[in-house]
Amino acid sequence: MKVNVPDINLPRVVVIGGGFGGINLAQSLKDQPVQVVMFDKNNYHTFQPLLYQVATGGLEPDSIAFPLRKLFKRYENFHFRMAEVQRIDPEIRTVFTSIGSITYDYLVIATGSRTNFFGNAQIERHCLGMKDIPEALDLRSLILQNFEAALLTPDLEKREALMNFVVVGAGPTGVETAGALGELKNHILPADYPELDIRRMHIHLIEAGPAVLASMSEEASKNAAQALKKLDVNLWLDTKVESFDGETVTTSTGKILPSSTVIWSAGIIGNGIEGVLHAAGRGGRLRVNEYNQVEGYTNVFAIGDVCLMLTDENYPQGHPQVAPAAIQQARLLSRNILSMIFGRPQKPFKYFDKGSMATIGRNKAVVDVKNIRLSGSIAWLAWMLVHLMYLAGFRNKLVVFINWFWSYLTYDKGTRLIIRPFKRKAVETKKPEAELVS
Amino acid sequence: MKVNVPDINLPRVVVIGGGFGGINLAQSLKDQPVQVVMFDKNNYHTFQPLLYQVATGGLEPDSIAFPLRKLFKRYENFHFRMAEVQRIDPEIRTVFTSIGSITYDYLVIATGSRTNFFGNAQIERHCLGMKDIPEALDLRSLILQNFEAALLTPDLEKREALMNFVVVGAGPTGVETAGALGELKNHILPADYPELDIRRMHIHLIEAGPAVLASMSEEASKNAAQALKKLDVNLWLDTKVESFDGETVTTSTGKILPSSTVIWSAGIIGNGIEGVLHAAGRGGRLRVNEYNQVEGYTNVFAIGDVCLMLTDENYPQGHPQVAPAAIQQARLLSRNILSMIFGRPQKPFKYFDKGSMATIGRNKAVVDVKNIRLSGSIAWLAWMLVHLMYLAGFRNKLVVFINWFWSYLTYDKGTRLIIRPFKRKAVETKKPEAELVS
Repeated sequence: MKVNVPDINLPRVVVIGGGFGGINLAQSLKDQPVQVVMFDKNNYHTFQPLLYQVATGGLEPDSIAFPLRKLFKRYENFHFRMAEVQRIDPEIRTVFTSIGSITYDYLVIATGSRTNFFGNAQIERHCLGMKDIPEALDLRSLILQNFEAALLTPDLEKREALMNFVVVGAGPTGVETAGALGELKNHILPADYPELDIRRMHIHLIEAGPAVLASMSEEASKNAAQALKKLDVNLWLDTKVESFDGETVTTSTGKILPSSTVIWSAGIIGNGIEGVLHAAGRGGRLRVNEYNQVEGYTNVFAIGDVCLMLTDENYPQGHPQVAPAAIQQARLLSRNILSMIFGRPQKPFKYFDKGSMATIGRNKAVVDVKNIRLSGSIAWLAWMLVHLMYLAGFRNKLVVFINWFWSYLTYDKGTRLIIRPFKRKAVETKKPEAELVS
Repeated sequence: MKVNVPDINLPRVVVIGGGFGGINLAQSLKDQPVQVVMFDKNNYHTFQPLLYQVATGGLEPDSIAFPLRKLFKRYENFHFRMAEVQRIDPEIRTVFTSIGSITYDYLVIATGSRTNFFGNAQIERHCLGMKDIPEALDLRSLILQNFEAALLTPDLEKREALMNFVVVGAGPTGVETAGALGELKNHILPADYPELDIRRMHIHLIEAGPAVLASMSEEASKNAAQALKKLDVNLWLDTKVESFDGETVTTSTGKILPSSTVIWSAGIIGNGIEGVLHAAGRGGRLRVNEYNQVEGYTNVFAIGDVCLMLTDENYPQGHPQVAPAAIQQARLLSRNILSMIFGRPQKPFKYFDKGSMATIGRNKAVVDVKNIRLSGSIAWLAWMLVHLMYLAGFRNKLVVFINWFWSYLTYDKGTRLIIRPFKRKAVETKKPEAELVS
């Protein structure tokens, strides 16, 4: 079956993924002489940097998601199809999806990344990721379900495990999540659960490296660590999680933490697609040249988290997997595709680092912009401003702003709802892996 | 196992249900010499009158739900437990729940109502109800999934079925839902799906009786019918749905409507509980006397949708199953319970009808208050004001107001997201019922 899009006499650009890369590419191709066909398994764009606030009851999921059709309404020659892409065959310039196949003249792979459990099946089974809205909602439900359950159990050890939260990986997501849990502990849960001794709630942030926010400046890292400690977050640096069986975390330093909830933000892996996996390099990312062309092809491109470009002299290990890199690549690529069509030379990509930032609870953030280092309230305001700027849609900006303002005034987080209770994956009978295979 | 709440020397009032009745009762007992224990299967109160706006993409679910713990924070002697109540044994004054049993001195059943499919298993299997947030979200997902699917199918009949929506029952919920679907058809879907001929979308409102909004004045009914027609809603009065197999609706007048989506708002049934079902009367409602005492008991009460009081001379068939009746009963009952404790006489309940209202799309509503009949913009403003007043929490009021204001200005509805795709119940092999039983 073929995907039914109009057959017109213009080069067809197929875009896989409606993340930052995909939407910026399609937006930059508005009113250009190409047909753009976008696939995404969801009908919305997700603002991933704020997923942790959905998970911790600070924002509604609808505030950080934006319908793709709405984003592209009144775009001529743009077609959206909600579908999963299964594989690509570059030899016949064809993408195979759950709703049929489609040929392309230019293909842009903007599939982003997923949680990397580094092949540890036990950890994958028991930990929660936080890469999409259903996962964030699952985590929100689970946090609240745990406290409801803690209230019921007379077993003190079990209660402690229910009230302990372990966050693995102290990059921006891990730091921000741990900070938000700290806010819950300090300002929300004591009033919601007067019958529980919330002081017994422990938040652990475990990091394999020697510092939090390793990608930022030493100053930012130090400030963040300090802010986390003020929020009662226990920091375990130079520590790896070795196992988690759903009840107990064991670490490389011999520490044993009883906990029902482990949030895994220790790494991501590129969402490669069958058909171009010959180009998959470190972290599952697809190797591209300076024009974002996937190894071996001139009309297949990868941008954003899923690509690995080693030609940018300032980034010999590849670019950071952050929204600005995806956006900048998308914008240049849209021009390069038009250049190819018109026979003009393409321009190589150079990443312009606008800086990086992370927030650690109320009124605290760290910002690195070139040689400027901000922290405290000013950094927090800057963090809010930048995030509102990048958030799609005026209505969303407004609702998120009101939520933040409201939280700031009242120390409250509005949406502590268990709409769909989280059900743990069925626990298999514990047989050794070898037996399971045979 | 016993539900662990503090054992104090005060009469214990157990409240089942955190709807309008339950929360108003508990609020009225604030700082009174009783212990209040509330059970609800959800950790939030649902503002049911606006569920249809969640289903049609106008509001976030989080805006019309309010965490029960937040509602009752800083209440002394109030205890919430998220649990399902299984049965009651009035002889031993005990409630049995999914988390254990608990004894009571006074028991208030405020369990509300659920969708009444009138025993038609086929209709129950294929139709969607709209009585809680997960159901409203399912409907939202399904509406959008249908349009995504309509885009893909080359089969014209199937496409038509996917674009047809049948609403059964023209009470306030049915009328408001049909109106909101009309708004989607007129203002949203043509821009979202430029490739579909949205004129082929049909909305059918089927009503067994001779008029829409039968509980309101003739004038309101006429105005509503007119407004619905302007919104392209096909009205089928004096018509019953006889069957729906998931693809085709057949009616008592011989009309056959192809449709994938039938929304059932044709009736509700009281949520009785095992142990007091001897008192169940018409519509599954528990018969109570003028003090809301369930037949046969002096310390077991039922309020709101679930109760049937036949002693109020103006309401010989029982009170309307609406929020104001539940709220008024709750407030009087809280005083009556205290009167019983202090040996004072109880007061009989009389319903004070503040009027009724319904909205039919943008800028249109009908309001009956005593002998005043409003319609058009003024009625619509009144409708908004009253709903904002009853909505719990300032943050929710503000966010809902902004959403409405925004929709009004832009003709847009913000949240057209398929967060959790709706999966139809597995279709059983079609055997005659008799065979299934044997």
